[in-house]
Amino acid sequence: MKILLKIMYDGKGFHGFQAQPGLRTVQGELTEKLARLFGAPVMVTGCSRTDSGVHALGFCVTAERQDKKDITLPVSKITHAAPGILPQDITVAAAAVVDDEFHPRYSVVKKKYVYKIWDSHIVPPFMRGHVLEYKKHISDDAILLMKEAAEHFKGTHDFTSFMAQGSKIVDATRTVFETDVYRDSEGCLCFSVSADGFLYNMVRIMTGTLLSVAEGKVSPSDIPRIIENRDRNGAGETVPPQGLYLKEVTYPFPVNWE
Amino acid sequence: MKILLKIMYDGKGFHGFQAQPGLRTVQGELTEKLARLFGAPVMVTGCSRTDSGVHALGFCVTAERQDKKDITLPVSKITHAAPGILPQDITVAAAAVVDDEFHPRYSVVKKKYVYKIWDSHIVPPFMRGHVLEYKKHISDDAILLMKEAAEHFKGTHDFTSFMAQGSKIVDATRTVFETDVYRDSEGCLCFSVSADGFLYNMVRIMTGTLLSVAEGKVSPSDIPRIIENRDRNGAGETVPPQGLYLKEVTYPFPVNWE
Repeated sequence: MKILLKIMYDGKGFHGFQAQPGLRTVQGELTEKLARLFGAPVMVTGCSRTDSGVHALGFCVTAERQDKKDITLPVSKITHAAPGILPQDITVAAAAVVDDEFHPRYSVVKKKYVYKIWDSHIVPPFMRGHVLEYKKHISDDAILLMKEAAEHFKGTHDFTSFMAQGSKIVDATRTVFETDVYRDSEGCLCFSVSADGFLYNMVRIMTGTLLSVAEGKVSPSDIPRIIENRDRNGAGETVPPQGLYLKEVTYPFPVNWE
Repeated sequence: MKILLKIMYDGKGFHGFQAQPGLRTVQGELTEKLARLFGAPVMVTGCSRTDSGVHALGFCVTAERQDKKDITLPVSKITHAAPGILPQDITVAAAAVVDDEFHPRYSVVKKKYVYKIWDSHIVPPFMRGHVLEYKKHISDDAILLMKEAAEHFKGTHDFTSFMAQGSKIVDATRTVFETDVYRDSEGCLCFSVSADGFLYNMVRIMTGTLLSVAEGKVSPSDIPRIIENRDRNGAGETVPPQGLYLKEVTYPFPVNWE
């Protein structure tokens, strides 16, 4: 019996998602604490491997007993029971029973990320660790240029230019479905992007490139050439992890969330 | 030479504003760190004494050298220099030079507080310590009743019913200027209130009373009688500190913020 959990986490206190000996990770915490909730050793599998400091608003994991036996806690009780067991920086937002064949990573058809930039030198304490502290104001005109540049990411491309050097990916072709650059209700400048998959550091390099556009170093019309060149050095810098949020993952069938 | 600073702080990590030996407080941190910024021992005076866990978005403090000499750092540089010296949970939003007679507490003519309630059992990790975790959904109809009840706080009243028992205040008369109950862009249910001054726990008892209205235990039209009775037992419970934000203080003259 496999349970799919939609979780949120504040990446500040974690060395990323993936379990690593001796380090506090999201997978490590879930594996330990869900065992207590389900009354047996548990195997936890994630939809992605987020880096240290990266946050999640709609991350998906599956959890199953190592002995594959049924989980007796009704799925409808999980979101109510989880806060008493999980640490303060992980929240279970929804739960569902899924088929044993379901894989939270391989089944994904779309992932959406948001990168948040705080573009003022006055950084409210509540934002710390949750945004890129860019410190310089980005004008409305520059935002329009960033939005125009981000449009060029759409479509199916070889995104080698937007992949961390040294990645062992053979085929860097990905399809970007949607992009947007906008200011949210809290005043953060946000870059959102959805695709069928992402290369290592792809969103962070895209964001760095959009900041080069805001700074006038790159023009929106340069983006297609930067993509075509398949050269990491042509794109902007890799911005730090703390502005990045995994917003949503989509599966090819409806999930019966409870 | 006196400098007025508008500061924000995340109350999570502080035992309130006021300095206390052996405890981490906002006044304690500012006194220590501003001495480094101004190159001499400093005296810091606050506009209010917030409790442990209470947050601030627009708290005002004055800072002056203990030897009363001029602060050589130009006031226009303070907001830029402060992040390098202050801890992550305190931000200087603005600074101004004020007269030596200025007192950040006695000069206040209006203070505004906001209390944030998270009314779902799914609490995003980013909200923890920054809202009251109320866990039950509050309907739009209940919000309208809370708003109607809050209207009755307006005006000049003896607010003994909304003051912590054991307070040594002789005259509990205060004038409430504005109240509102609304849902903010993050989804928090907010109660905002401005007055010429507040009694100990006044906003937290008002909020507890509004939650009694939401729960149908108190009707909006009961509020005038609760005020008139001058009996703490007639009002609702004191909600916890972590939902409370000092939003703004107003002085009777314009401040030349830089």
